[in-house]
Amino acid sequence: MKSQDLGLHTHHQFDAELEEVRAKVLQMGGLVERQLKDALEALVNCDAAAAEQVVLNDYQVNAMEVDIDEECTQILALRQPTAKDLRLVQAITKAIADLERIGDEAERIARFAMNLADKCLSPDQYVELEHLGKHVREMLHDSLDAFARMDVNVAIHLGREDKSVDKEYESVLRQTVTFMMEDPRYIPQCLDILWCARALERIGDRSCNIGEYVIYFVRGKNVRHTTLEEMEREARG
Amino acid sequence: MKSQDLGLHTHHQFDAELEEVRAKVLQMGGLVERQLKDALEALVNCDAAAAEQVVLNDYQVNAMEVDIDEECTQILALRQPTAKDLRLVQAITKAIADLERIGDEAERIARFAMNLADKCLSPDQYVELEHLGKHVREMLHDSLDAFARMDVNVAIHLGREDKSVDKEYESVLRQTVTFMMEDPRYIPQCLDILWCARALERIGDRSCNIGEYVIYFVRGKNVRHTTLEEMEREARG
Repeated sequence: MKSQDLGLHTHHQFDAELEEVRAKVLQMGGLVERQLKDALEALVNCDAAAAEQVVLNDYQVNAMEVDIDEECTQILALRQPTAKDLRLVQAITKAIADLERIGDEAERIARFAMNLADKCLSPDQYVELEHLGKHVREMLHDSLDAFARMDVNVAIHLGREDKSVDKEYESVLRQTVTFMMEDPRYIPQCLDILWCARALERIGDRSCNIGEYVIYFVRGKNVRHTTLEEMEREARG
Repeated sequence: MKSQDLGLHTHHQFDAELEEVRAKVLQMGGLVERQLKDALEALVNCDAAAAEQVVLNDYQVNAMEVDIDEECTQILALRQPTAKDLRLVQAITKAIADLERIGDEAERIARFAMNLADKCLSPDQYVELEHLGKHVREMLHDSLDAFARMDVNVAIHLGREDKSVDKEYESVLRQTVTFMMEDPRYIPQCLDILWCARALERIGDRSCNIGEYVIYFVRGKNVRHTTLEEMEREARG
């Protein structure tokens, strides 16, 4: 084998390694999506057993984060990537940290679902929260889609959706506060609803972060802390 | 200059670069500490102007994160560090992400302080929150101290303190809910207190994370998602 072929061989192997890690991120993302879906369903259906299962499954999300993080360290140490390869490893490291925290928020929702399961609030109480949950699940899904295809347009779309999720969150907040003031007996339950809404709003933020890492990978620009307009400009190159 | 000297020279220069980045992290930490202190004082003193200043200063924290993150990328790309040097860069990248989020929580507290400034709750309402704030400020300070000295013992101490902060947070929660149920007119103000308490509890968690990166740097072990006992065992080597 000529040394040139050897270089090519190593290069192919490296690409395969990167591809494998990227596939694991998407697998982790799929698990986190399922956790969120199950937590929200358990909440709305007052299903304590399903909620408990979400809590029990969280360790799997954590284990995947540790595993992928370790692989990224190995790649940095042994392959010493530069340019786009380096940016991919960095984007992955940051994305899995957000995914892990989204998993934590799903677990938190599941704990409130366990709490609320035997307190039977009226289904009306959940309507707005359900809408918010649906919207946030779409955002999470889109962020993983953006990451899978390294698509800056989906990433820009996420920035816009986040604004709209923030508004829905404010609306759940107002509605729940009104309900609490009208009937203070329900304050503890309503607070649980509020914490769940807050967790969902945070998941929207974190899905948005994942979109930002996609823009960083594709354009080499850090768009955290920029306005939506600046982000769009950078993303479109 | 002999090539051996040149190697030494480059090595010294690299060490100086790493030292400079580490100094910047501590500078960023100092800024975040000040933001948290100012936000809490503004809250307790009903000082809307001081609170607004905290909100206005948050961009400085963000700018430092972007700057340090960029320097870490440069180091990874140009110096291709391995072993302990690589772990230091990784620990720094993760620590500044947590510091930036602690800055966000301080900003959030400042926004609630602006909200609450003209609503004049009784000082009693703030007593437990003040205790919690004091405790969390100590944790943040200790986490920066652990990072400055790369001291695993301080990192272990943080893990213990976090448990105790969680208990204080639960106590603020219970007290505030009781107050809300006794006098529903104060529900909106009490909710602001609750959100502040929650922000403080999150700052405790994030200070704890910084301790974990210290253990990762010193021992090469990822102790996220481990129990306090496992963490202690790993940290003591």
